[in-house]
Amino acid sequence: MNNLLVALGAGVIALLFAAWTARRVLAEDEGTETMKQIARAIQEGAAAFLRREYTFLAVFVVIVAVALAVFVDYDVLDRFGPQHGELTDFPRTAAAYVLGAISSALTGYIGMYIAVRANVRTAAKARQGLNPGLRVAFSSGAVMGITVTGISVIGLALVYLITQDVQPLTGYAFGASSIALFARVGGGIYTKAADVGADLVGKVEAGIPEDDPRNPATIADNVGDNVGDVAGMGADLFESYTGSIVAAMALTTAAVVGADKGVFDAADVNAWDAKAFALPLLIMGIGIISAIIGTFLVRTSENATMGRLLWALRTGIFSASGLVLAGTAVLLVAMDLPFELFWAVLIGLVAGQVIGTATEYYTAYEFRPTQNLAKTAETGPATVIIGGLGLGMLSTAVPLIAIVIAIWSTYQIAGLYGIALAAVGMLSPLGITLATDAYGPVADNAGGIAEQAHLDPSVRERTDALDSLGNTTAATGKGFAIGSAVLTSLALMVTYSQVVGINDIDILDVDTMLGLLIGGLMPFVFAALAMGAVGRAAMAMVNEVRRQFREIPGIMEGTGKPDYARAVAISTDGAIKEMILPGLLAVVVPILIGAIIGAEALGGLLIGSIASGAVLALMMANAGGAWDNAKKYIEAGHLGGKGSEPHKAAVVGDTVGDPFKDTAGPALNILLKLMSIVAVVFGPLFVG
Amino acid sequence: MNNLLVALGAGVIALLFAAWTARRVLAEDEGTETMKQIARAIQEGAAAFLRREYTFLAVFVVIVAVALAVFVDYDVLDRFGPQHGELTDFPRTAAAYVLGAISSALTGYIGMYIAVRANVRTAAKARQGLNPGLRVAFSSGAVMGITVTGISVIGLALVYLITQDVQPLTGYAFGASSIALFARVGGGIYTKAADVGADLVGKVEAGIPEDDPRNPATIADNVGDNVGDVAGMGADLFESYTGSIVAAMALTTAAVVGADKGVFDAADVNAWDAKAFALPLLIMGIGIISAIIGTFLVRTSENATMGRLLWALRTGIFSASGLVLAGTAVLLVAMDLPFELFWAVLIGLVAGQVIGTATEYYTAYEFRPTQNLAKTAETGPATVIIGGLGLGMLSTAVPLIAIVIAIWSTYQIAGLYGIALAAVGMLSPLGITLATDAYGPVADNAGGIAEQAHLDPSVRERTDALDSLGNTTAATGKGFAIGSAVLTSLALMVTYSQVVGINDIDILDVDTMLGLLIGGLMPFVFAALAMGAVGRAAMAMVNEVRRQFREIPGIMEGTGKPDYARAVAISTDGAIKEMILPGLLAVVVPILIGAIIGAEALGGLLIGSIASGAVLALMMANAGGAWDNAKKYIEAGHLGGKGSEPHKAAVVGDTVGDPFKDTAGPALNILLKLMSIVAVVFGPLFVG
Repeated sequence: MNNLLVALGAGVIALLFAAWTARRVLAEDEGTETMKQIARAIQEGAAAFLRREYTFLAVFVVIVAVALAVFVDYDVLDRFGPQHGELTDFPRTAAAYVLGAISSALTGYIGMYIAVRANVRTAAKARQGLNPGLRVAFSSGAVMGITVTGISVIGLALVYLITQDVQPLTGYAFGASSIALFARVGGGIYTKAADVGADLVGKVEAGIPEDDPRNPATIADNVGDNVGDVAGMGADLFESYTGSIVAAMALTTAAVVGADKGVFDAADVNAWDAKAFALPLLIMGIGIISAIIGTFLVRTSENATMGRLLWALRTGIFSASGLVLAGTAVLLVAMDLPFELFWAVLIGLVAGQVIGTATEYYTAYEFRPTQNLAKTAETGPATVIIGGLGLGMLSTAVPLIAIVIAIWSTYQIAGLYGIALAAVGMLSPLGITLATDAYGPVADNAGGIAEQAHLDPSVRERTDALDSLGNTTAATGKGFAIGSAVLTSLALMVTYSQVVGINDIDILDVDTMLGLLIGGLMPFVFAALAMGAVGRAAMAMVNEVRRQFREIPGIMEGTGKPDYARAVAISTDGAIKEMILPGLLAVVVPILIGAIIGAEALGGLLIGSIASGAVLALMMANAGGAWDNAKKYIEAGHLGGKGSEPHKAAVVGDTVGDPFKDTAGPALNILLKLMSIVAVVFGPLFVG
Repeated sequence: MNNLLVALGAGVIALLFAAWTARRVLAEDEGTETMKQIARAIQEGAAAFLRREYTFLAVFVVIVAVALAVFVDYDVLDRFGPQHGELTDFPRTAAAYVLGAISSALTGYIGMYIAVRANVRTAAKARQGLNPGLRVAFSSGAVMGITVTGISVIGLALVYLITQDVQPLTGYAFGASSIALFARVGGGIYTKAADVGADLVGKVEAGIPEDDPRNPATIADNVGDNVGDVAGMGADLFESYTGSIVAAMALTTAAVVGADKGVFDAADVNAWDAKAFALPLLIMGIGIISAIIGTFLVRTSENATMGRLLWALRTGIFSASGLVLAGTAVLLVAMDLPFELFWAVLIGLVAGQVIGTATEYYTAYEFRPTQNLAKTAETGPATVIIGGLGLGMLSTAVPLIAIVIAIWSTYQIAGLYGIALAAVGMLSPLGITLATDAYGPVADNAGGIAEQAHLDPSVRERTDALDSLGNTTAATGKGFAIGSAVLTSLALMVTYSQVVGINDIDILDVDTMLGLLIGGLMPFVFAALAMGAVGRAAMAMVNEVRRQFREIPGIMEGTGKPDYARAVAISTDGAIKEMILPGLLAVVVPILIGAIIGAEALGGLLIGSIASGAVLALMMANAGGAWDNAKKYIEAGHLGGKGSEPHKAAVVGDTVGDPFKDTAGPALNILLKLMSIVAVVFGPLFVG
């Protein structure tokens, strides 16, 4: 109990720090009147999207909450055992679900609120130099990162303090997952529809530069960066973070905490159960404080090079990671818990770094793979596509082997609890890793505003440098998001088996086999739907931009004003409409499989989807990142530079990569986690 | 025993029929002197490739055979139990392995021998009309199809009659698998390297038509059709066919034959074991006779339309399928076996047809998906690629759900034996389905010869019509090959568990989990290696063709003769060199996983690779087929026709699709089966 209060305290500190940082960011200069106007348009577009998205989600959440109340809390089918019947005065799981959903929506809202205000301030600051710009952009990322971790820890601690039961915790995680899926898919569709629409008609057909104010889709494009890469990414990692904590806590109560590995005497299990139960939350609390300290270390000299900037960000992350480890070691000793658990946390952290580094190696143009990919552009777009797909497929090996080794070794240390603890370790410094990630779109937006407000070209150069740095950190962040998703969903799958009380899920059982095959299929169908959605939404945008160019007089001469709001509305409509089918699929399929074939088949579904989904997600994210950077490599003057035939071929790769890395790939993480948490929450309905 | 002699007899009839048909084909007119010369060059190139390939494989086979003799037959690690020790006077498994490898090589050799002689005769006959051309091409396909089934049944029956043990049967299947993998991968690399090389330099850079004799890569391109689509496809299906029989037979001896489903009394199991054991071979025997009868029904009137031609082929397949069913029903009654087994065979056959039809729907341009894909070409190559990948991913749903339903229902009928029997049923009319498939490359080659020999354009039109029909049957055949591979490898996985004596492979066990994750990874890494290999081999070919255009005087004017043999040698070298790494991976990884982590992990590896590999293979095959036909749809005069911007975009899709559908996709089938059979053969080494 006291332990949970400590965690709660760390969460409160996080929110205070976030509020303080936000105030500092908002106090910065907003620049010229034009800049303010552009920023206002982006803010309005982003707010309009979130309003529409949350309105839809509110309906969805209410329906699911009612289902949870009826089938889980009031247990009308009488599947949750007798002790469950007594406690159902208040629909706790349903309430926790709603709270989780609201928490997730809140993190998305806060992250985006600050991002769409930091962009213009970053542009304004970049007039002074690279470094002031970095500080503003990074601070807004830190607001997002620290808020995500703070709200999650507070939410989980409160739910348990009030209900004193694990079931509502899984409800909270389920709420976070539901919102995350729609936010990722909807945001991903929005951002790519606007991006493709703006590029295809503006850059290719009309021949005007990127972010040119004459392009009607410019504002929508800038809004897209925020709803996709800020709000979507935030909801994604809020979910991983929450899921990893819940999985570890749930595994403790199921008393599988390493007793089988001899770390503890089986007889002692009850004695330290409460401590092990609170441990994940406490490690996250240490992570929060470490991340806050880390943000202060992201500093660099005024005339820093790119390498130096990247190093500044890394200093922050590495310091925070070191602090987490030190804090965990002290914590374990103080709580009189076995010190072996320290190694599980360490392994999780290291595995996260390995995955991030491998991702960087395969996708950054400083390294061979992406340079070789750029060379394939010399023989045309087809070889670029084949090369990128091959690179993406091959790049999955190191991350997956890192995950396999992490699982194997943490299991040796502390059994299934060890695996869950590795996920916690990997995510513990999330406050700062997410900050380095979420600052990218802010820099990207700042560049757009600089362009549209006709600022000095040197400003755009600086924001481009920041943006390019952001691309590297974003690629790393995506690999990391997938790695943590695999660990978290594996831990949740084990939790599922404990919850439904099945001791083994036998592959040789034909039900499991069926579930497994369907599970293997799910990520492909889901990715296909997401990519198809981007295509349709982009086509609507293309038609709209063409129409405006045709019908608004003087638009190309700069005398007629494009109807930005209409383009924003088109993207919003498309994204909301298109996110529904893939989103529902992820919730409905596991329930159907469980209800029709049974609990073992549902277990098979989960593992099958992890086996194919993890690789597919990594492949899509890395191929997309590599294509993007191969294009940038050519634009940097190699192989003929911008406008050459190789460049045109590389642009094709980049366009294919966009829905890969920004829509389908990242949404797959959530698919895996959401299906697992659906199984955990509804699992007992499918037994017997 | 008598039953096996009956099956043996059917196999002998098959070979007699094949020999008779081959004589008829070879008796046909070879056309003009130029045609003979061109055909000779193709024959020599194909023979040279097979010689090189088989020389390499001989070394590989000897090494594996020695390993089998030492570790399995002589059981130096003492893992196969005491009764195994007594019987090891003669290294039976190793010998059966060598026999299986030779059988597979033989089917590839015979299929290609007849194909590279039927091509020129088809071209010669096509001067008379469409129908005579079809007869020759289809007959040569029938030689291949019937030979594959005949040799397999004879080989398996002989091995069991001599050794009276199941272990050598798995050795035979392993031999077939090893050759199949290298043949598929090597042939696939060869055909695509030559194709891309010929197209890229010839069509795009030099601006000369396809199959133009001035192109140095023309002969290599024609050889490629044979080594890839004839020899490779034949080895692939020889392996599926053999594997499905062995899996069903092995499951009988493990006494899991539906006793658990109440189809038989458990007490009776021994009584009918011998009968159930022979059943798969007998059904295949019926299938052989049915397929032979079916080939006689492939007739059509002189002035037949495309639809009528397709219907002629279907009449053959459907009649053969009907005869198999009737024969199976009679057989079950005559053998006094439970009639329920009939339904398992029926379900397998129907599932095969459903998969074939779904494949056709997604890849033929008569239907919406491919037409819509063609429309995406209007917005450039990037949207074609995204659209094709999305189509490929979505197209996996129906086939996989068909497989899932087949598994579920056949399991209800006769347990695990039922699943194996479904695979047998699906493959039973292979003699004729493979014939409709293998005739495509013959028609394709005939077109090339017609072009190079400057025959009347009407001949080329006729061979193009035959070729186009062949594309449809080839797409169907590929879906079918994957469907049967999934069923066969699932049955082999179950066989594996029986062989090593593990009763359950628990997903919740961390070892299984690790194996499963690595299994999910394998198909992606394998596909990446195969695609990379195509890229490298194609690049070597491109450079060679460019060199010849540059260095051989008068080549473009038709006065200088290109060095075809050198281009053939380049493709051969590239394919042989590049097939080694992916081929070894498939053999080595399962053994390593089994040896290092253990038997459960190996089971996880198998199921993980099936879960991700089946979907990936279907996706690649169908996306490739759809891209190919979207291009053809535009060439048929839609959306601007040949030479338009949409056509150029569609060509990019087609080029990406080539290694998808002809190299990586089909090789994945074999990967799944080969890893399963490796597990079955070496499994006992990993226990304890």
